[in-house]
Amino acid sequence: LIDGDGDDWLYGDGGLDRPALTDNHKAARDWFAAEMRGRGYTVLVDAIGNLFGRIDLAGPDAPVVMIGSHLDSQPLGGRFDGAYGVIAGLAAVETFRREAVEPRCNYIIADWMNEEGARFQPSLLGSSVFAGAVPLDWALERRDRDGKSVAEELRHTGYAGSDAAPRPDLYLEVHIEGDDKMEKAGARIAPFLRHWGALKIRIEVTGEQNHTGPTPMQDRKDAVLGAAYIIAFVRELADTAADTLYSSVARLDVSPNSPNIVPGKAVLFAELRSPEPAMLEWSEARLRAALPALAARASVTAEIVAVDRRPAGRFDPRLVALSEAVADDFGYPRIRLDTIAGHDAVAVNAILPAIVVAVPSVGGVIHRNDEYTSPEDLAAGGDVLVEMIRRIDRSGGDLNLATETP
Amino acid sequence: LIDGDGDDWLYGDGGLDRPALTDNHKAARDWFAAEMRGRGYTVLVDAIGNLFGRIDLAGPDAPVVMIGSHLDSQPLGGRFDGAYGVIAGLAAVETFRREAVEPRCNYIIADWMNEEGARFQPSLLGSSVFAGAVPLDWALERRDRDGKSVAEELRHTGYAGSDAAPRPDLYLEVHIEGDDKMEKAGARIAPFLRHWGALKIRIEVTGEQNHTGPTPMQDRKDAVLGAAYIIAFVRELADTAADTLYSSVARLDVSPNSPNIVPGKAVLFAELRSPEPAMLEWSEARLRAALPALAARASVTAEIVAVDRRPAGRFDPRLVALSEAVADDFGYPRIRLDTIAGHDAVAVNAILPAIVVAVPSVGGVIHRNDEYTSPEDLAAGGDVLVEMIRRIDRSGGDLNLATETP
Repeated sequence: LIDGDGDDWLYGDGGLDRPALTDNHKAARDWFAAEMRGRGYTVLVDAIGNLFGRIDLAGPDAPVVMIGSHLDSQPLGGRFDGAYGVIAGLAAVETFRREAVEPRCNYIIADWMNEEGARFQPSLLGSSVFAGAVPLDWALERRDRDGKSVAEELRHTGYAGSDAAPRPDLYLEVHIEGDDKMEKAGARIAPFLRHWGALKIRIEVTGEQNHTGPTPMQDRKDAVLGAAYIIAFVRELADTAADTLYSSVARLDVSPNSPNIVPGKAVLFAELRSPEPAMLEWSEARLRAALPALAARASVTAEIVAVDRRPAGRFDPRLVALSEAVADDFGYPRIRLDTIAGHDAVAVNAILPAIVVAVPSVGGVIHRNDEYTSPEDLAAGGDVLVEMIRRIDRSGGDLNLATETP
Repeated sequence: LIDGDGDDWLYGDGGLDRPALTDNHKAARDWFAAEMRGRGYTVLVDAIGNLFGRIDLAGPDAPVVMIGSHLDSQPLGGRFDGAYGVIAGLAAVETFRREAVEPRCNYIIADWMNEEGARFQPSLLGSSVFAGAVPLDWALERRDRDGKSVAEELRHTGYAGSDAAPRPDLYLEVHIEGDDKMEKAGARIAPFLRHWGALKIRIEVTGEQNHTGPTPMQDRKDAVLGAAYIIAFVRELADTAADTLYSSVARLDVSPNSPNIVPGKAVLFAELRSPEPAMLEWSEARLRAALPALAARASVTAEIVAVDRRPAGRFDPRLVALSEAVADDFGYPRIRLDTIAGHDAVAVNAILPAIVVAVPSVGGVIHRNDEYTSPEDLAAGGDVLVEMIRRIDRSGGDLNLATETP
């Protein structure tokens, strides 16, 4: 189902290129929606373009279990990040459906719009609107670097929906790990206990556009030089804080970006991530305090123009316990992890009991063409997901009952 | 003629956006070619898309004087850089034509293809092919960042010509200054004596694409971080060398340039400029020596993948003397300058007596929307150009005779 053979968005190098609301993304979603419809699911699309497939196995008032992830990818990303959780969710519900006697819950598969945040910032856009953390109108107005808005591209791809978002009672997600901790520990299953907080900071550096030839060095106001000093400083912050702070500047838009014009503008997309709110506060304060001097070294100015704040938090402990009990019953070696990356479950976790169960990614590779998880590990994640569904269903959606030893 | 009123490529902010072989560039060239045809010039386009207008005022064996510059601009550039020289060239020949009795030379106006090097690198592409410094086939294969080649875009804009390039006997160019030295000195005319040499160096930084969340800091191979260290070092080189070396990194292409992927690749377009060949050698050697350590600080590799070398040189001293004698006769205050920026005359100077005569640009602004030269200064440059033509024509193209006091 997920090897992509014959799919035209799959590169020869094993990766794919499916940022949110591109033609490749539309093709994957169209295929998935048709797949769900063909299996009898009611397909719903809400106003921010989240795609849902609902199947009612119990009565109209039965608890609703949602399982999902995302079909969008990073540009030049891998095959497993996101797609695995969506497909495994459908496969798990289909497995459960075939064997279930008197099921007590209804089920929804979710494909969240723009988890990656590669084309439109911020990431987790669809799940954040779903969770009420981000206003719909604001989300629809986000624009890619060519100026196209989410609203326009939802219409263009046919995912400007009008269905009300469903209101499930709990949320499950399986996902590949983005690190090699599981591989090193020999684990096949790892629930995420905590999610790190993140600050996504946009910094605008303003210099003055001039010819790189005649303009005397002392008169230059080089926005890229200012950006270089800031990039080095953002890295220094993490080096100072050792393992409790991760930092990056991964996108840099230079204007006009011509080899012989001193750049007048540079926009940096920086991230600071930590499990500790105090560390996020400290690093943000240090960055704000340092910016004027870093900019002045290049005779430019630098301003923080936007900060997207993701608080640190914990996933539902009952779902963590349930996933561990199930993994143990299968005999799958397991460890506990934090997630540093954002996941749709992080957004959903704000309003519902939620969890992410991770399977290993070879070498910890993620967001790259050679992202790979073995069929055995993919199946292990699927096993745990189906068994969690069985026990939750048997308890009628009561997580306290589900986690009791049967 | 050059205020651009009513032209749709002119921005409300006074600037224009006319990189080589864009629709805006084609519109300007089409207009200019029609203007020349309407005035009786024979329009020629050579294989690299240089546009020439030839008018024969004397016999077929008479000396040929070429006057020109370029109609392409930087992205978000100004109105005077290049366009002034082309239009002033036509205006000067038209003025001379109306008054000439028994003219002894023939005249060609040149609009060189891709002087700026903003869209296609290197700059001075058309004049370099003309001068034999760059092979035609190689020039035609240059590509912009979207992968479109010069050959394709010449065909697309209708400037894939088949005319042989003309072979003039000397070349004159007027151009705005890219610095405020003239303004500060109160000068209205300045011949360029020397042209600085330039090294245009492309550096490829290779890291590893990873998620900015979970990837541990010590495992990151961040190409943008490596680029930042290199950018800071390139600036340091110029600071060390004081006024004999100018340096820049003005274009930086980051891949995949997504806010949450550690960049796997960054390509830097650096420039080193100096009037002294030894300084160029020294700075290139220092950069080559420093690159491995700069890259290693970010756990990446860095490689110089291309170097375009523009040797330092001198313009024709007879043409310099002629321009100064003419300026003095008009009573225009003058100084002597070097040019640090590239000009088509620098390329042409390798095979023909050539000169650039500069007029001031207010505040030294160039490559920006607010580039401005007063009508009086534009006219002063035109006066000098017409009078140089008169004297060269009177001498029958003999520069030794032309520079003698009449």
